[in-house]
Amino acid sequence: MRTRGGGVRTGWTMFLGAAILTAVSIAPPAQAQLNPDPLPSWNEGAAKRAILDFVRMTTDITNPQFVKPEERVAVFDQDGTTWVEQPIYTQVLFALERVAALAKADPKIQGVEPFKTVLAGDKAAIAKLTVPDLEKILAATHTGMTVEVFRQIAGDWIAKARHPRWNQLYTDLTYQPMLEVMKHLRDNGYKTYFVTGGGQDFVRAYSERVYGIPPEQVVGSAADTQFGYDKDGNATLTKVPKVLLVDDKAGKPTGIHLMIGRRPVVAFGNSAGDQQMLEYTQAGGGARLMMLLHHDDDAREYAYGAQSKIGTFPDSLMAEATTRGWSVISMKNDWKRMFAFEP
Amino acid sequence: MRTRGGGVRTGWTMFLGAAILTAVSIAPPAQAQLNPDPLPSWNEGAAKRAILDFVRMTTDITNPQFVKPEERVAVFDQDGTTWVEQPIYTQVLFALERVAALAKADPKIQGVEPFKTVLAGDKAAIAKLTVPDLEKILAATHTGMTVEVFRQIAGDWIAKARHPRWNQLYTDLTYQPMLEVMKHLRDNGYKTYFVTGGGQDFVRAYSERVYGIPPEQVVGSAADTQFGYDKDGNATLTKVPKVLLVDDKAGKPTGIHLMIGRRPVVAFGNSAGDQQMLEYTQAGGGARLMMLLHHDDDAREYAYGAQSKIGTFPDSLMAEATTRGWSVISMKNDWKRMFAFEP
Repeated sequence: MRTRGGGVRTGWTMFLGAAILTAVSIAPPAQAQLNPDPLPSWNEGAAKRAILDFVRMTTDITNPQFVKPEERVAVFDQDGTTWVEQPIYTQVLFALERVAALAKADPKIQGVEPFKTVLAGDKAAIAKLTVPDLEKILAATHTGMTVEVFRQIAGDWIAKARHPRWNQLYTDLTYQPMLEVMKHLRDNGYKTYFVTGGGQDFVRAYSERVYGIPPEQVVGSAADTQFGYDKDGNATLTKVPKVLLVDDKAGKPTGIHLMIGRRPVVAFGNSAGDQQMLEYTQAGGGARLMMLLHHDDDAREYAYGAQSKIGTFPDSLMAEATTRGWSVISMKNDWKRMFAFEP
Repeated sequence: MRTRGGGVRTGWTMFLGAAILTAVSIAPPAQAQLNPDPLPSWNEGAAKRAILDFVRMTTDITNPQFVKPEERVAVFDQDGTTWVEQPIYTQVLFALERVAALAKADPKIQGVEPFKTVLAGDKAAIAKLTVPDLEKILAATHTGMTVEVFRQIAGDWIAKARHPRWNQLYTDLTYQPMLEVMKHLRDNGYKTYFVTGGGQDFVRAYSERVYGIPPEQVVGSAADTQFGYDKDGNATLTKVPKVLLVDDKAGKPTGIHLMIGRRPVVAFGNSAGDQQMLEYTQAGGGARLMMLLHHDDDAREYAYGAQSKIGTFPDSLMAEATTRGWSVISMKNDWKRMFAFEP
């Protein structure tokens, strides 16, 4: 083998020489290869820069913005922030589809409202169901079984359910740029949590597999559970229709304190339901990153942000983002690629 | 240098030969030094063996009892299980002592019961306070301030409060054998959680410093919190006198599911308040470790276990431990050393 110098060497010396030469000559590209862009699905711009700068500063012990590893808590809303929430929340669809299974097991409910309307499949009528109707459907489909049985039911359903627009699994309609942000944060010592208005037990059925977020890092709306025993005297925990926590709006900071007990330093949301979580995160002072995802891309996803009619992102939220200095992510402009299945 | 074979070698070959010889000849003692007894404060016996065997089996991937790292959840009761709970719960003492601070800030309460009785310091009268009296005291001392202010107050108090019997800080009245168990579990990939009937926010004020258990791993009784804003428009979270969770007895499995979302594989308790937590842990099947600490050492601590008059450890619990095969730890016989401050 010929080295650069042209001399022929053998054995360990040659090996070492080659290793040193390799290290010297290709170090910069090797380094770059070891640290590629952690956010490849993001376009260059203020949003991407805000994330990268924040992570770099808060993990550099010489930087005044340094955050101690144990304080690195990042919270994420789920619906509309890390996966598609239009035209209907995935969990509501789950509840509606579960009614058929319930009716099979217990034919009596076929003639009882609101189940009758759901079973008839009339979308216009279903869209008109009242909140008490939906509560009845949620109670019937989400309680009365052990926590393990519920997780199995939800996990089995989500493993197959597909979104009609893309004909893709709901779990593949996660935003690739957000998965990259979560991973980049975790790679830098942040613990990533869901803080979702959705049901805690529903999200736990897939969050670890789909997002890398384990059950103990899912904060969500929660029903109470009832301790008891099965026929063999083994302890059981059964889901009951009594609300413990509504993890939305002002309930989000309460859920964060109850289940995490630390104020987050990073918060991502996309709607008025996340406003208080972002405010609570920011009020901790010091280095904080608050980001709002704005749905403004009708071509690749949906546009229901500020100034749209169906929005849960009122103009007042956009105004608050400006006043408080939160970063707004434009899906249209900031995201190069939306879903992993896209080329 | 001479190798075993007697030949003289140089360079890399000799170095490698020496390294291999070293590895072969001194491996066992080096290994032993790297792995000293992880439970030095325990006497040899069934309890110590149960812990060591369980950890060894569940972390050995070739063992049928192997537990995946993410499932390694160990839960601990606090009062009476990891520190002294006699003659009065530390947190109740905190509440009683805080009444004086409240009376200083608001002299009106000096004449109002039950505060008047507490301020008079008559131990017999204080011992007779009713549950509603105690609830008033808990509400007055534990709510009305932000979660940060409360943590500061509790942390400041616990940093100085001493137990009269030993004249030691309460935080030094942690059981050394239990600290060793917690560390041994963590060293083997277990996450250690408190599941305490005590107030979650109180325990969080010192759990990381004293036990190595961070705030997000403290499951405890919890009051609700109210979101709001301070005069500068910064978000705040204020403790309010509305119970969210009573984390005792059947409430412990509920708290575990709410805040951890996994069934533990290890549970330590010391009273009837821990019965359901132990049952729930065991009912998961597979490798499980349920241990009950029995206070039977009047000389070194207290004896208030089974067959004692003041016990929260009824004879029925001892009978259940036998039936279900839970390990009972005798403080008197199983613990060589009780506290770290002892010689």
